[in-house]
Amino acid sequence: MAEEQRDPNTIYVGKKPVMNYVLACLTQVQNGNGAVTVKARGMAISRAVDVAQIITKRFATDITVKRISINTEQVKSMVTGGMSNVSSIEIVLQK
Amino acid sequence: MAEEQRDPNTIYVGKKPVMNYVLACLTQVQNGNGAVTVKARGMAISRAVDVAQIITKRFATDITVKRISINTEQVKSMVTGGMSNVSSIEIVLQK
Repeated sequence: MAEEQRDPNTIYVGKKPVMNYVLACLTQVQNGNGAVTVKARGMAISRAVDVAQIITKRFATDITVKRISINTEQVKSMVTGGMSNVSSIEIVLQK
Repeated sequence: MAEEQRDPNTIYVGKKPVMNYVLACLTQVQNGNGAVTVKARGMAISRAVDVAQIITKRFATDITVKRISINTEQVKSMVTGGMSNVSSIEIVLQK
């Protein structure tokens, strides 16, 4: 997702193992302003929810889900070159 | 998900094509009390978000996302017989 702005407070969830993102989020909450935004698109949405749940239920019960929003983004298809819609999720975690 | 209570206002998103669930939700909103809850677990979470987005953005712009919540459910593994955690999502759509 190189076209998106790289906010250090935002973790983009993709195809890596879930624990990579969990660690990245925990590090960000500790070093940053106590909040982190988890974003994902398409099939990675399930993984983003996993990340949020693992953090709030297992590792850091003092961190809570503050806000969840869903949206639709337009992405250029790698195959056809046309535009297609893809769902996205944004989960804000806060200490 | 036979162990769960079958509320007619709740659509459980699984492995069927997205449009099946979109139609089921639209029917429920028209015939019911103007609201429907979309639920999904695990990998189907992405599809549930797709369903909500297709309804609110394409088919019925008068329906809005009222509430989104995420949770963790315990399910019995088909393979090992042990319990494992699976993330779930609940999206409430309202006219």
